[in-house]
Amino acid sequence: MPDKVRIALDVMGGDHGAPVVLPGADISLTRHPDIEFLLFGDSTVVQPVLDRLPRLKAASRLVHTDVAIRMDDKPSQALRYGRWKSSMWLALDAVKKGEADVAVSAGNTGALMAMSRFNLKMLPGIDRPAIAAIWPTLKGESVVLDVGASIGADEAHLINLAAMGSAMARVLFDIERPTVGLLNIGVEEVKGLEQVREAGRILRETRFPDFAYHGFVEGDDIGKGVVDVVVTEGFAGNIALKTAEGTAHQFASYLRAAMNRTWASRLGYLLAVQAFNALREKLDPRKSNGGVFLGLNGIVIKSHGGSDAEGTASAIDMGYDMVRYELLAKIGHAMAGDIHTATEKLASGAGS
Amino acid sequence: MPDKVRIALDVMGGDHGAPVVLPGADISLTRHPDIEFLLFGDSTVVQPVLDRLPRLKAASRLVHTDVAIRMDDKPSQALRYGRWKSSMWLALDAVKKGEADVAVSAGNTGALMAMSRFNLKMLPGIDRPAIAAIWPTLKGESVVLDVGASIGADEAHLINLAAMGSAMARVLFDIERPTVGLLNIGVEEVKGLEQVREAGRILRETRFPDFAYHGFVEGDDIGKGVVDVVVTEGFAGNIALKTAEGTAHQFASYLRAAMNRTWASRLGYLLAVQAFNALREKLDPRKSNGGVFLGLNGIVIKSHGGSDAEGTASAIDMGYDMVRYELLAKIGHAMAGDIHTATEKLASGAGS
Repeated sequence: MPDKVRIALDVMGGDHGAPVVLPGADISLTRHPDIEFLLFGDSTVVQPVLDRLPRLKAASRLVHTDVAIRMDDKPSQALRYGRWKSSMWLALDAVKKGEADVAVSAGNTGALMAMSRFNLKMLPGIDRPAIAAIWPTLKGESVVLDVGASIGADEAHLINLAAMGSAMARVLFDIERPTVGLLNIGVEEVKGLEQVREAGRILRETRFPDFAYHGFVEGDDIGKGVVDVVVTEGFAGNIALKTAEGTAHQFASYLRAAMNRTWASRLGYLLAVQAFNALREKLDPRKSNGGVFLGLNGIVIKSHGGSDAEGTASAIDMGYDMVRYELLAKIGHAMAGDIHTATEKLASGAGS
Repeated sequence: MPDKVRIALDVMGGDHGAPVVLPGADISLTRHPDIEFLLFGDSTVVQPVLDRLPRLKAASRLVHTDVAIRMDDKPSQALRYGRWKSSMWLALDAVKKGEADVAVSAGNTGALMAMSRFNLKMLPGIDRPAIAAIWPTLKGESVVLDVGASIGADEAHLINLAAMGSAMARVLFDIERPTVGLLNIGVEEVKGLEQVREAGRILRETRFPDFAYHGFVEGDDIGKGVVDVVVTEGFAGNIALKTAEGTAHQFASYLRAAMNRTWASRLGYLLAVQAFNALREKLDPRKSNGGVFLGLNGIVIKSHGGSDAEGTASAIDMGYDMVRYELLAKIGHAMAGDIHTATEKLASGAGS
């Protein structure tokens, strides 16, 4: 285990850049004094902010670049003008060169994914990357993946997702053998996509040392926390994530409107304001900010573009945990054992 | 327009059967005195309940059958023992024979879909059925389809869904040209599945008299009510629907827990109880109970298996509206105009 956790931070990423990203890093540093930051960004913008944060400044090294990826560029555009020299690229490059343990960026998701693939390359045995999200549930939290890195998934990719997601759940939740569910419609074995059914068959018939296969789960099982890891391909996963966000937003709007309806409800609100604050805290999207890019030769955390300092700190905390509790080694372990077994199954199944 | 709306009711469907279905029918009858019911079920069970509901009894004719489809049977099993004689089949058959205008059942979804296809057959030009749901939004309600009738959809099916869903929105919301969005991940034209992109291109380039194409929408746009009709294939649609249900349930649990936390919050709750009741009413799943099977030669409404009488009444109300405001004629109109145009586009596109 490394002595320090070295975090490469794209200071120019996100809607706000340095004025939000650096205070976020400072918050995370108070929680994890063993972080060392490598900051990438335009020093004329970054240095003045950094000068006001002496603790962070003492734990950081700033690398200047005046190229920053714009939030609305297509990945191909971003690669064209930002490769080799943008703050995003340089943060990833620090991970590649072994100068940092993890890269964190609130920049353009598509560009970050494209650059991550291009620079870090995929782990052996994994063709396509995935984005894993932390999903608050009635029981605590679950890992849900893929929430939008790639569309469609064959059975081999779904099994890779199970292995990677459970490695992440082991890191986050400190459980030896997380439970894994395959997202499907209907719990009968007969239903669902061919690839999902086939992946379900292999997962059911194989014993994986690093996770326990639960079976199919449906959309409403995610929020119930039925399993630690929910596996799905990126199209359905992204729609599930966004739909849940939309529903939470809708509920909060209704609640606000309801509490403003009469003088009694307004007074009731005042009396219960602590309870409402606790509820708001529970639903605070900043708490579960940070998608983890999985399948790459290195750890990359995507923070939400609109995050404030607290949200940025959550994303950095997540990066810290992934390094401290050795995500990559755990993925490697799962891939060596589990996936090897599953791949053999797939190969023998293909011949039958 | 028919003088009476004739509703064929599968009295044995759902988790509770006659003791819930008949009181539900009675509630709906008070709202729509021009309903005539054709009831299908075991008269030894149904008759005693019906005898206690004189108003409903006067507006109904009971057809006895002692075969009922079980809630957990596979569609193939249900077809084997229930064809020609189960209460579910007979309700559908009444629609086929023109003795009823719509069939309503709270029975097993898979069996109901299989029997509907087998008995009623598909509308000309439509290969596969769809299930449309009413989705409560911040602006009111939207139609979302397909929420699970079939998995995967090519561009032609997506365009059929747009036509059928907008016909339903015209019936429900009384708007001449509903807006239609295609569910996708990311709003950039470059993203998403090939079929979704291609359907988007055709919808964008064609002018449909019966609906206005809005463009791509994401999961969180559904709850915002960005469009009147959200079109997606059944796998993603079902996951979106179930995930939203799960999130709403989760939010309600958190809220209950928060309001029980301290004496002040409990007192606040008491003061605001009317506001909470209004909120509960807003979120009441019974209000939007009832999926509509689309694409068939007849109207079939699926009520939720666990519905109570109020929920059943909502499903029957929906069936009533679909008949009264001529859903099938509107679908026919949309299919004749819109789909003809789109199909020509597809044919010419295939040659390019």
